[in-house]
Formats: sequence, structure tokens, C-alpha cells
Amino acid sequence: MKTTSKIFGKRSEKVGLPPGTLIHVGEKKTEEVKITVIEYNEEHFDQRQLSAIEECFSYKNTKTITWINIDGIHNVENIQKLGDCFGLHPLVMEDILHTDQRPKMEDHDDYFYIVLKMLLNQKTPEFMTEQVSLILGPNFVISFQETEGDVFNHVRTRLATAKSRIRKMGADFLAYSLIDAIVDSYFIVLEKTGERLEDIEEDLMTEPSQKTLRAIHQMKREMIYLRKSVWPLREVISALNREDSPLIKDSTKIYLRDVYDHTIQVIDAIETFRDMLSGILDIYLSSLSNRMNEIMKFLTIIGTIFIPLTFVAGVYGMNFHFMPELRWHYGYFAVLAFMALVGIIMLIYFKWKKWL
Amino acid sequence: MKTTSKIFGKRSEKVGLPPGTLIHVGEKKTEEVKITVIEYNEEHFDQRQLSAIEECFSYKNTKTITWINIDGIHNVENIQKLGDCFGLHPLVMEDILHTDQRPKMEDHDDYFYIVLKMLLNQKTPEFMTEQVSLILGPNFVISFQETEGDVFNHVRTRLATAKSRIRKMGADFLAYSLIDAIVDSYFIVLEKTGERLEDIEEDLMTEPSQKTLRAIHQMKREMIYLRKSVWPLREVISALNREDSPLIKDSTKIYLRDVYDHTIQVIDAIETFRDMLSGILDIYLSSLSNRMNEIMKFLTIIGTIFIPLTFVAGVYGMNFHFMPELRWHYGYFAVLAFMALVGIIMLIYFKWKKWL
Amino acid sequence: MKTTSKIFGKRSEKVGLPPGTLIHVGEKKTEEVKITVIEYNEEHFDQRQLSAIEECFSYKNTKTITWINIDGIHNVENIQKLGDCFGLHPLVMEDILHTDQRPKMEDHDDYFYIVLKMLLNQKTPEFMTEQVSLILGPNFVISFQETEGDVFNHVRTRLATAKSRIRKMGADFLAYSLIDAIVDSYFIVLEKTGERLEDIEEDLMTEPSQKTLRAIHQMKREMIYLRKSVWPLREVISALNREDSPLIKDSTKIYLRDVYDHTIQVIDAIETFRDMLSGILDIYLSSLSNRMNEIMKFLTIIGTIFIPLTFVAGVYGMNFHFMPELRWHYGYFAVLAFMALVGIIMLIYFKWKKWL
Amino acid sequence: MKTTSKIFGKRSEKVGLPPGTLIHVGEKKTEEVKITVIEYNEEHFDQRQLSAIEECFSYKNTKTITWINIDGIHNVENIQKLGDCFGLHPLVMEDILHTDQRPKMEDHDDYFYIVLKMLLNQKTPEFMTEQVSLILGPNFVISFQETEGDVFNHVRTRLATAKSRIRKMGADFLAYSLIDAIVDSYFIVLEKTGERLEDIEEDLMTEPSQKTLRAIHQMKREMIYLRKSVWPLREVISALNREDSPLIKDSTKIYLRDVYDHTIQVIDAIETFRDMLSGILDIYLSSLSNRMNEIMKFLTIIGTIFIPLTFVAGVYGMNFHFMPELRWHYGYFAVLAFMALVGIIMLIYFKWKKWL
Amino acid sequence: MKTTSKIFGKRSEKVGLPPGTLIHVGEKKTEEVKITVIEYNEEHFDQRQLSAIEECFSYKNTKTITWINIDGIHNVENIQKLGDCFGLHPLVMEDILHTDQRPKMEDHDDYFYIVLKMLLNQKTPEFMTEQVSLILGPNFVISFQETEGDVFNHVRTRLATAKSRIRKMGADFLAYSLIDAIVDSYFIVLEKTGERLEDIEEDLMTEPSQKTLRAIHQMKREMIYLRKSVWPLREVISALNREDSPLIKDSTKIYLRDVYDHTIQVIDAIETFRDMLSGILDIYLSSLSNRMNEIMKFLTIIGTIFIPLTFVAGVYGMNFHFMPELRWHYGYFAVLAFMALVGIIMLIYFKWKKWL
Repeated sequence: MKTTSKIFGKRSEKVGLPPGTLIHVGEKKTEEVKITVIEYNEEHFDQRQLSAIEECFSYKNTKTITWINIDGIHNVENIQKLGDCFGLHPLVMEDILHTDQRPKMEDHDDYFYIVLKMLLNQKTPEFMTEQVSLILGPNFVISFQETEGDVFNHVRTRLATAKSRIRKMGADFLAYSLIDAIVDSYFIVLEKTGERLEDIEEDLMTEPSQKTLRAIHQMKREMIYLRKSVWPLREVISALNREDSPLIKDSTKIYLRDVYDHTIQVIDAIETFRDMLSGILDIYLSSLSNRMNEIMKFLTIIGTIFIPLTFVAGVYGMNFHFMPELRWHYGYFAVLAFMALVGIIMLIYFKWKKWL
Repeated sequence: MKTTSKIFGKRSEKVGLPPGTLIHVGEKKTEEVKITVIEYNEEHFDQRQLSAIEECFSYKNTKTITWINIDGIHNVENIQKLGDCFGLHPLVMEDILHTDQRPKMEDHDDYFYIVLKMLLNQKTPEFMTEQVSLILGPNFVISFQETEGDVFNHVRTRLATAKSRIRKMGADFLAYSLIDAIVDSYFIVLEKTGERLEDIEEDLMTEPSQKTLRAIHQMKREMIYLRKSVWPLREVISALNREDSPLIKDSTKIYLRDVYDHTIQVIDAIETFRDMLSGILDIYLSSLSNRMNEIMKFLTIIGTIFIPLTFVAGVYGMNFHFMPELRWHYGYFAVLAFMALVGIIMLIYFKWKKWL
Repeated sequence: MKTTSKIFGKRSEKVGLPPGTLIHVGEKKTEEVKITVIEYNEEHFDQRQLSAIEECFSYKNTKTITWINIDGIHNVENIQKLGDCFGLHPLVMEDILHTDQRPKMEDHDDYFYIVLKMLLNQKTPEFMTEQVSLILGPNFVISFQETEGDVFNHVRTRLATAKSRIRKMGADFLAYSLIDAIVDSYFIVLEKTGERLEDIEEDLMTEPSQKTLRAIHQMKREMIYLRKSVWPLREVISALNREDSPLIKDSTKIYLRDVYDHTIQVIDAIETFRDMLSGILDIYLSSLSNRMNEIMKFLTIIGTIFIPLTFVAGVYGMNFHFMPELRWHYGYFAVLAFMALVGIIMLIYFKWKKWL
Repeated sequence: MKTTSKIFGKRSEKVGLPPGTLIHVGEKKTEEVKITVIEYNEEHFDQRQLSAIEECFSYKNTKTITWINIDGIHNVENIQKLGDCFGLHPLVMEDILHTDQRPKMEDHDDYFYIVLKMLLNQKTPEFMTEQVSLILGPNFVISFQETEGDVFNHVRTRLATAKSRIRKMGADFLAYSLIDAIVDSYFIVLEKTGERLEDIEEDLMTEPSQKTLRAIHQMKREMIYLRKSVWPLREVISALNREDSPLIKDSTKIYLRDVYDHTIQVIDAIETFRDMLSGILDIYLSSLSNRMNEIMKFLTIIGTIFIPLTFVAGVYGMNFHFMPELRWHYGYFAVLAFMALVGIIMLIYFKWKKWL
Repeated sequence: MKTTSKIFGKRSEKVGLPPGTLIHVGEKKTEEVKITVIEYNEEHFDQRQLSAIEECFSYKNTKTITWINIDGIHNVENIQKLGDCFGLHPLVMEDILHTDQRPKMEDHDDYFYIVLKMLLNQKTPEFMTEQVSLILGPNFVISFQETEGDVFNHVRTRLATAKSRIRKMGADFLAYSLIDAIVDSYFIVLEKTGERLEDIEEDLMTEPSQKTLRAIHQMKREMIYLRKSVWPLREVISALNREDSPLIKDSTKIYLRDVYDHTIQVIDAIETFRDMLSGILDIYLSSLSNRMNEIMKFLTIIGTIFIPLTFVAGVYGMNFHFMPELRWHYGYFAVLAFMALVGIIMLIYFKWKKWL
């Protein structure tokens, strides 16, 4: 995880330009931009892929509800044209292009601008994040994503299903569904995180190593990053809920309240994981130092047992002319026995003291 | 304690389904669903076990107060029917089935939806938790539990007792009684926790071990989990108290204020336990390192006493042709005496320095 | 200090009983209940000890101000009768009997119910705590204490003094005086705590031991407990001050503001003690590890000096047939001198390095 | 620093006395009380030292502005008389005498009562603190100090200067000037603290010792104490600013806002110092343990090099009859060379491992 | 980084002077003061460097928008004259000269006074800070800087560009642009900080040293300092946004909201860096102690292997007359083999225990 560049993109490229200058700040992508339009109402459903951004403009004033999804925001010209057509403020367009936004919600009277962080459900244990910008207008939703691949497939399926609730509701419900899908993506990541946490705990019991420490810190950092995304998300949804703009109907608000509960659950889980990680770190450090202490104690005890014995051997290695014991016939064996005795007594003493 | 799966259930199974889709999220249960109905007013009391959910529907518009208790929420169809009959919002029904809710209270004008976490009073030292959903209507309370076995028996007994206060009051007082019973269950768990804490403290004095450390962390984690349940509970009760819906009478509010005080006491106790656990952890780590240091010091002192003596023995083990002491008749004994003297002086020195 | 049972009494005995059931929760006392009545106005003062609770009832509607003090709350029947006579709510009576209340204030229109924690000024360094419940009515104050012996003697003396301010004021001023006496009792305990803190600091300088550690943690725990009592006390007094019930006159409020300032001072002192205890703990741990390190360093240095010398002795203890030095006449003394030299050089080196 | 007695004076002497009883709580002083009166308006300036408190009374109703400064508050009778004359509430007089007040502001309609903590600019590195009470009336300011010597000399000089702004403004501006002088005294102490911090940092680089640790903790404690004085001070000034009493004119409020900014700067500096002290403590502990580890590592390496060599010498010190090497003519030198080789290889290995 | 003098300048020089006395508090500069005036409206643009402050005065009442930029505030007389001309409050002028202000905003009806901290984009890794004071009047902005060299060049370029948005807007937009440029300067510093953090992390993996520790603490301290600048900045911008003075038009507020978002991002990044630094510090300390432990363990194991062998050698070095083994022909080799065996067994045992 290239940490710091994740925390904010290369802002410096932007510094000094007038506000509202459209420059893409984020990882440069070379893939083609993909524009998908879904148009629907209760009876009708139509999904189409557009080759040019201009084709979108006709959808602006239809009576049906339109969802324009743009995968890839590195084509600045496209965004410019779209923004001009739908009357977006230059600063909004700028923010769409800057992928280092905090989740936020802006009420521009005619439309809401919502920034979210989507967690991509990947194979690797670490998660990937992508900025999603939503424009919610009276009868349209425009979503901007950094790359293809998202968590909205379930929403598409439901839209395609005749008689589903989403077909009967307005653009605000569509926006809610997209937000809900994004919040759901957090749950999946958190479940994986929970599993990794259990793995780490098991490692702790069996064989703690420096690798465990790094894994703990990696997860800690991920939790910091996640929290940074979810806390403002909570405020976003809460702000949407408090709005009394005609853009958000009361019938949708009860659903927003439900997503709000989910973000609170996500925050709760993150805080719990953080607390647990602290606990695990404590146990790790303590068991590491314990293990080391056990080893040192064992080694020192061995040394301590032999030091007096070596001294005794040294004594009878002295070359004094008159050392009566040396002449005793069984002196040698007596000394060996004495040394064995001393060793055994020390062992017993250490055992009794519970040092071994 | 399978920690992480406790923190939230298998949400991923739910991801992508339209909101309001009824799927049971939680540990799968295979036991039969048990539906119990208690119908009462001041004069009358009737308890009955129903075989089919449809039998409940007749109780909806009676003048008496009805408590429908459902043990087991894995039968989604039942919940669906009941919800349709009593006019519950699809999201409420969804939340009843998701056992990873945070305690919360929702005001749906016609009824209140309350989610609580019940602590089951078990034999094992660790506690078990179960989600309880309450629907409080004008003259009925519906409670949903995950399994049979609850903390409501005292409420049932009081309901069966003629002239008890509960018989004279409305459905709101019944709901209060159930909440009160649940908060009481926290006290029992906390008392047990207190006893375990005292056990741990005693262990600390006598024989601190890695096991003690794990017990401390286990309790810390339980406190985190408890706190996660009780903090929102406090908000729930406070919100009920602030409501001026006709569903909650003023005469009941003074009782709610009492339960509110109890939750504050529970929170206080949890915070105190957390503080105490931190202190205990500090003492544990300190006495562990102290014990280790004492051992190492003792062993090193033994080594330090013998090292100079061994040196002296080594000196007189040298093979120089001219070493006058070697020829002295009592040289050997003189050296032994000298070595004893050095040893004793060192011992005295270490004693005097309070190192032994 | 039996910690956990102090944090809350045996609540479990209470679980499942209907709210308002009067059961004494707390340490069982066997002493007789003592009922004292003081009746006074500006001209008149009368103190009497009653043998039966019924004798109180006549004081209810007198024009003079009455202070009924009850020492011992284990006689449930007495409380019941008194409560019925003075129109106390069943939940209030229940709370009087539960000695594990948090300090709180309840406005019951006709009377205020105030719960406080009194610190008994004892001989032992550790403090003892007792729950005091006050009922403040229009012309009476009822106080309930767990045992005889309190901090109210100064109030009694002032009441007995003709022309004292307290005699000219109403029941609210009497209640204030009792609260003031209780807050004063905190100051005494804090002063003692301050002295113990200074003792501990002195111990740290001279001879830190495990006992010091335990004393630090004991004080930390006491501060946690004190804080738990004082924080809600602050809210209680602040709430009394905000009340615009006729039960509390404006002339009394300026005095309440004064007690409020005192509780803030107490809280300040507690927080300062906590900060200081943390600092002391840090110094303790650091000086302990420092002391241990000094010892180990000293011992290791001794070992390190003798190890090379022993090696030299070992070399000349080898039995090679051709070892020219052995035949030198002053070889032995040369080697002794060499060893002394090496030893001295090492000593000087260690001194120079400031290791000794 | 006698810490705890600084945190609060001997409150216990006060316990049990009726509120408003005037007793001096603080260090007993024996010096004479000094009463100074400055009377001024735009044209006129007069400074006088009074021998008796009664002389003050005439200044109460003059049209000029009067500043009565009292050095020494241990003469209770004086305070009593003054308070009676100027209509001070008994509790205010009590608080003037208690030098353990928290900084606070009380609005008594006719006058403001302000308590502050003045830091005396002394020679010693540690600071001394003194309680200053201000009474701000319509045309007078009374200030009470514990001893002679204060930070108000600059105010006096400005008062004596004709045409200075202070001469044109009212008593509220005088009070502001005194508060400003007190806040300025904090800056001087903080600058000294900053210098001591730099000294400590330098010590850390060169020669960390237990003394450094004590200095760090001493400063930490001073910061705790300072913060305790400044936080409430901020509230005091903010409250004065919000007042719309005629006692404080709008033209003065802009100056109060300026002092308010200064207190915020002081708080900021204190918090920064605290953060820096924590960092310094971490570095201290880490470099101490590092130093110790380096020593132990060095000593252990010396031991480790000689242990195998001593073993080799021991081998050839064995007395077996048949040990072929012993008979080799250059066996001794071969063994010496071998031992040197082993020693050098070990040294190189340790160097390569960066252990030396 | 001369830390403490950065935290506040030499305030003591100021102490005791009447408020509003103009004295430059900050590093003394000797360079000449540089006064630049830019005058513009939609059609017209003019940039001029003035030799005397008096030349500014003519710009006060022009219809065009004027930006007076003053590099160098050590010429007190200049500030005085300018302030008198533009009607600045003495306290504002005082604050302009004191370069130890906290970022703040003051509404003086006719003009806003805004203090900011600019981070200079330098070559060195550490950043330099400079106080910028802005006066925003109806049609002019005056900016005061400590030295030449700033982050406003981009603003100047945009002003010089015909048809740029900034030329069409008022003085409030100019002020916004300056603030925006300053906030952008934080991003550049934070990016550098991010890179240094990555360097430190890499160092940690390869070769942790005391230098790493110092770098970590240096960064920690910088983060403390940055936070101290940015938190009040956030309040400043938020206050500007809430203002409904005619000095700030609604069309500018949407831009202020954008800068506000940027400051939140900066705060977020700082908090994240702080969290990451804590994590890095933990890893550093842990890997340091781990490294040390590995070394000590290795050395101790070497010692432990040779100690018993040396004992064996010592035994056969004893001079007993009757020691049968000594006479065996292959006794010596048998003992050597035995010692090798013991050594190998111990090595295997330690390997198996994963100690080596």
C-alpha cells in the first residue's frame, strides 16, 4: 500500500491554477472512458452504451428517470461538456476530477453533489478504494467512477426487473440504492478484515513473529483509512436525511435512515476492530518479551549451574604441593559426586522456585 | 468467543438484495418457532401457545392488551405475515431478521420499533447475547427473540398476578417492563464480571501467568462488546422518554427515567471495570518483569561471586616453575580461606546494597 | 477495599421484582434504626429522638421547619410508612433503599429527591463511603443514612445556635447546608490523599518497591471511584441551581453556586491527582528499571573484567611441554602484573566511558 | 514545590463553619497589610498609601475612578470592614480570603467579582503563584493580593502618565489592564519554560540522566498546574466579554477580546509544551535504554569472545597422559595463534553484523 | 528548528506596554520594506512598486480594486501611517506586527482583519512559516508579509490575465484567492512530509537507528506545529463563510466553502500522519528491542554452549592422583569427542527450540 499517495493525490500539480480549472488529479488511467445510460420508469427500461458524451444531453429533460454512469474521469473534456449541459458549478466539476476528496454532500439547489468512497471487492486481502461522485437531479442521476468495475451490478439487475420497487420510485431512490450498494461494500471488506484478525489471533497463539507485527500495523493503518472514509459518509447521509429539498422525497428518507444505521454499524465495527488490534498488539509484545525472557532465563540457569562446578574443578586444578584431597584414592570420585550433588540441589532449588 | 462473527453476522449474504428483502441474517436455527400470546387487562389474564401465526391476527383489535412473543425468527414467512397484518414497514421486518442490529428505537407513528440486546444468564463465565425486537402498538407488544429462553419470566409472573401494577397499566408499561428485565440482565452479568475481576486480582498476587494476561484481555474485549450494546441502549431509553407520542403515557415515563438511571449505572460500571482492567494489566506487566528481573539478578549475582574465585583458582593452576605460594605448606588452605573471604565480602556487599 | 462490590451492590437479589418493590440493597446492617427530628424556626429550636416512625407524621404540616434524620435504612417497613405519609413515589422509596445509586436529583413537583455520596472522615488512610438520600419538601428535609455517624454535626451546632443565618432561612437552606457539609467531607479526604501522595513521592526518592506500586494503584482506583461520585454531584448541584421551583429560593441559589464552585475545585483536584499519579507511576517504573539496569551493568562489568584474566590464567595452566614463559624465573609475577594491568586498564576504560 | 498543598490550601480548617465565615485559608503571612489607593481621572492623578482601611470608604462615591489595592489578606477584620462598606456579599469576602480558588467571575449586579492567578516573575526557574481578587464597581476597582510585589507596575506607570489612554477610560478599562498584566505574566513564565525545555533537549543529546527525567516531570507538573489556572481564566474573560452589564463598556470589550486571544495563545503554548514534553520523555527513555543496551552488548561481546578461548586453554590444561599436541615443540605457539585467529574471526563477524 | 522561539516570539519585550503600542515582535529583519500595489478591474490592470507608504493612500477611494502587498513589517512607522489612513484599530496594527498570532478573523464592520500562517515552499525538507495579515475592505485588500517571497505568484499571474474570473469579481474574491494560495501551500508541505514518511518507513525495514527516532520525533513535532496553524484556520474560513457582511458576496462564499473543504482535507491528512507516526514509532521501538534481543540471545547461546564444555575440561584439569580416565590411551580423544557431542546436541536442541 503506497500509503501517503493514497492519503492525497498529487495536489501539487493543481497548485496555483485558478479555482474551477479542470485537471484530473489522481492515478492516470489510459483506458477508454465508458458511458452507460439507463433510462427507466415503471413500465419502461432501456440500457445503452454511448460512444460520445453529447448523446447524453437528450436525456436531460425526458420524463423518465435517467442514470448516466461514466467509468473513467481522465477525459477532462467530456466532464466539461457534461457539466455545461447539466449546469454543474465549475467547482463541482473540479471536485469530480480530484480523486482525493473527502466524502461530502453539497446542495446546489437544482442538484445535489455527493462524493463517496467505494471499496472494491477484490481477491487480495487488502482493499482498493475508488472515488464515486453522484449528481442527483430532479429526474436523473449521474455517477462518475475512476475505472470500470463497481459494486452497482445488483442495482442494475433490480432496475431491469419489472415491478421492482426501484422502478416505481424516483431518482432519489436510485441515488439511495447506489449509496446503499457502496455501504454494503464496506461490510464485505469488514468481514474479510474480521477473518484476517482471527488469523492473526491464531498466529499469536502458535508462533508470533515480526510478520505478525507488520500485519497488525497494516490492519491498524487500514482501519485509520477506513475510518477517514466512513465518518464523513455518516455526515453525508445524515445531511441528506435532514434536507427538505424537493429532490429527496419523504418516502426515500426512511430508506436513508436505514443506510444511516448501517454506516453507524460500520463505524462501530471499525472502532471495535481498532480496540481489538490494540489488545492484540499488547498481547503480541507481551508474549514476545515473555518468550525472550524464558529463553534468557533458561540459558542463564544453565550457566549458573555450571559456574560453581567449574570453580570446584578449578580448585582441584591448582598446583599446590600440599593439597591432601588430591592424594585420597577416591578423591576424584568424591569430588565428582559432590559436583553432581551441587548441580542437582541447584536444579531442585530452581524447580522449587518455579524458575524452570 | 468467535469474536468477529459476533461483531456482525454474515452481512455478505444480504449484499445486493433490494432493501426490505426478508432474509434471516444470524446463526441458523433449526428449532421450531414458538408463538406465545398473553392477553390481559385488569380483570382478565389469558396465556396461550399458538400453532400458526395466523391465530395472532385476531388479537390486533381487541380492547385488552396483548403480548405476542415469538421465539425463533428464522421462519421468514411467519414474520412476513405478521408484519403485513400489523402494518409493519418492510425495513422494520428486515431489521427484525438481522440479528446484528445496534440497539435503536424507531418511531413509525402507529407503533414503535425497538431493538435491544439481551444478555442470557448462563452457567459459563462468558455471557451470551441475543437480539430482542419489540413492536409497541396502542394495545399490543410484539417481541421477537432468536431462541427460546429469556429473562422475561418475572414479567410473566407479575402479569399472571391479579392486582399487580402491570395489569392496571397499558402496553407501554409492558414494554417498559420488558426493557427493565433486559437491563436487569446486564447487572447480573456485571456482577459476575466483578467476581472474575476479583479472581484475577487474587491470581496477580499469588501467581501471575500468561493465562492471567489472556483472562484480562478476554474481559477487556467483553467490556468493549458490552459498551457497544449499552451506549446505544441509553440513547434508546432517553429517546423513548422524550417522545410525546400517545403510545407512551406520562405515568410510564417516570419508570423509563428509572431504567435510564440503571443504564447509566451499567455504563458507569463498565467504564470503571475498563479503568480497573488497565490498572490490573499495568500491575501484571510490572510484576512479571519484576519477577523476571529478580531471577536474572539472583542468577547473575551467583555468577559474579564465582567468577573472581574461579580466576583465583585459575591463577594457582598455572604451571610456572617458580610460584612461591605453591610450596607453602598451608598455601592451599590459605587460598581456600582467601576465596571464602572474598565470597563472603561480596555477599555482604550485595546484601548491604539490597541486591539480594 | 472490596472493589467490585463497592461498584454496585447485590443487584441480583432485586432482579425480576416489580419496580417499586422495597428491598434493601446494600450491606446488611443489624443496628437499630435511629430517628432524630430537629424542628426549628427563627425563635424556636427543638431536637428529639423518636422511637417509632409514626411520631414523625405530625411534623408534616407544622409551620416550623423540620429535619428528620434516619440512621439506618435496613428497616424497610419504616421507610414504607414514612414514604406513604409524605407522599413519596414508590420508585423514590426503592432508590433510597438501594445504596448503589449514582448521585442524582429528581424533581417530583412537591418535593426534590437528592442522592449523594458522603465520605466518612476516618482514621484509616482509605476512605469509607455512604449513601445519603435527601427529601426536600416545602418546610421539611428528610435525610436517610446507612449508619450512624455522619458529617452533619456542624450543621446541628449551627441550627442550635440562636440568630445563626440558618435559623432565619427555609428548608432549602438546610438542604444546602447538608450538601455543603458533604462536599466539605471531600476536601478532607482529598487533603489526606495529597499527604499520601507526598509520602509516595518521598518513597520513590528513597526506596521504590512493589509496595509503592500497589499504593499508586490503590490511589488511582480511589480517584476513579471519587470521580464517579463527584462528577454526577456537580450535575446535581447545577440542576438544583437551574430549577425555578418555589422549593428553592433565589437567596439560597447564591449559596448553591458557591458549593458548585467547590465541587469544581474537587474535580480539578481529582484530575490533578490523576495526572500526578501517572507521572509518579512513570518515574517509578523508570527508576525501577534504572536501578535494575545499574545492578546488572555493575555485575556484568565485574564478570567482564575477570573473564580475560581467567583466560590468561587458563593459558598458563596449559600443559604443553614447551612453554618458554613458564621457565622464566619471574614469569609468574610478570603474568600477575600483566593481569593487574589489564584489569586496571579495563577499570579505567569503564570509568572513562561513565559505565561505572 | 510542595505540590499538593499548592493544589488546595488547608480547607479542613474551614470545614463545618457556616458559609460566609471569614477565615483566611492559605499560607499564613505575618507582614503588615499595605493599602494603596490611586484616584484618577483624565486631568487628575493621586496615589496614596493608607494606614487604616477606614480611609478607603470616602472613595466610594467620588466621581473620579479609584483603585484600591490591598497587599496581604490575612487581616480578616480589614476585609470585613471593606466588604461591608462596599456592600460585598459574605460569600465573596470568604472567597477573597481563600487562596485556593479557581479563576472565576461572578456578576453581583452592582459589581463584578473576579478571581485570577498571578504568576510572579522570579529569579528561580520555578514560578510562584498568587491569588488576585478584583472587585469591579461602577467607578472603582479593588484588588486583593496575598503579598507585596506584583506585575502591576506598568499599569501604575501608565496611570501616572497624563494623556495616556487608560486615564480617559473607566474602571472597566483599569480592570482590563490588570487582567492584561496578569496574562502577560504568563508569557514571561512560558518563555522561561521554553528555554528550560531547550536546555533539557540539549542535555538529552549530550548526557541523559535521572536528573533529566526529574526535570521533565517537574515541567510536566508545572504545565498541569498552569493549565489548571489558564483554562478557567479563558472562561472568565469570555464571560466578561459576553456580559451586557453597564459596568463593562463596549469600547473596553475589543480590548478584552484581545486578552482573550492572548489566553488562547497561552493555552496553545501550554498544550504544545505538553506534547513536546511527551516526545522528549519518549526520546529520553528510548536513548537511556539504548545506551544501556549498547553497554550490555559490548560487555557480552567481550565475554563471548573469551569464553571459547578459555575453553581451548582448558582443553590443553587437561592432565591426560596421552595428549599428542602437548608434545609438539611449537604446540603452545600454534594454540596461541589458533586462539588469536578465533578471536579475530569473532571480532570480524561481530563487526560485519554491526554489533560492535 | 529552534522550537520554542517558534511557538511564540519574544513577547517579554512587549510586556507592560499599553495595548496598541506598535512594536515589532518577531525575528528582526534588516531588508528594505517592499510595497507593491496592484490595481485592477475587469478592463484594467496595473502593477506598481511604491517607494513610500504615502503613495498608497490615493488608492483608498478608487473604484477599481486595489491589492497593497507589504513585504517586511519591521518598519513600524509605515504600518502606523497605513493604519491611520485606512482607519485600522490600534490593536489590529499591534497584531500585524506580532508575528506570533494564532490564525484568526476579526470583523471590524468596515473591514475584516485576517491572520494566516503561510508555509514557504523551500528546498530543505523542513518547512518555514511566515505570518500573513490580510485587511479586506470594500474595494481593497492589504496583505502584510514578514519577508519577500510568497506563494501568491499564481494569483498575480491570474490577475494579469485579461478575462480571468478573478478580474470580474470583487476584493472578497481576491482575499479568497490569497487564502486559497496559502492553503495550497499546505498541500505541498504535506506531500513532502508524506515522502519523508515513506523514506522513514523504508529506513525502518532496512536499518533502524537513533537517527530514525529523531526523524520520527522531528516529524511529530512538525505535525503538532502544523495542526496548531490549521485548526484555527478552519475556524477562520468557517467564520468568513457564516458572515453576512456586505464585504463578502454570496458568489464568493461557494469558493470559501471549497477552501474550507481543503482545510478539512489538510487536517485529515495531519491526523492521519500523526496516527501513522505513532504506528511507525511502535514498530521502530519493537524492531530495535527485537534486534537487541536477537543479539543478546545469540551471544548468550554461544556462552551457554561453551560453559559445560569448559567445565568438562576443568574436570580433567584436576590434579587428583587417582583419575583413571587420564591414563586411558584414547581418553583425551574420547573426551574431545564427548565435548563435541555435547556441543552438537545443544546446538540441535537450540535449533529445534527455534532459538537460533
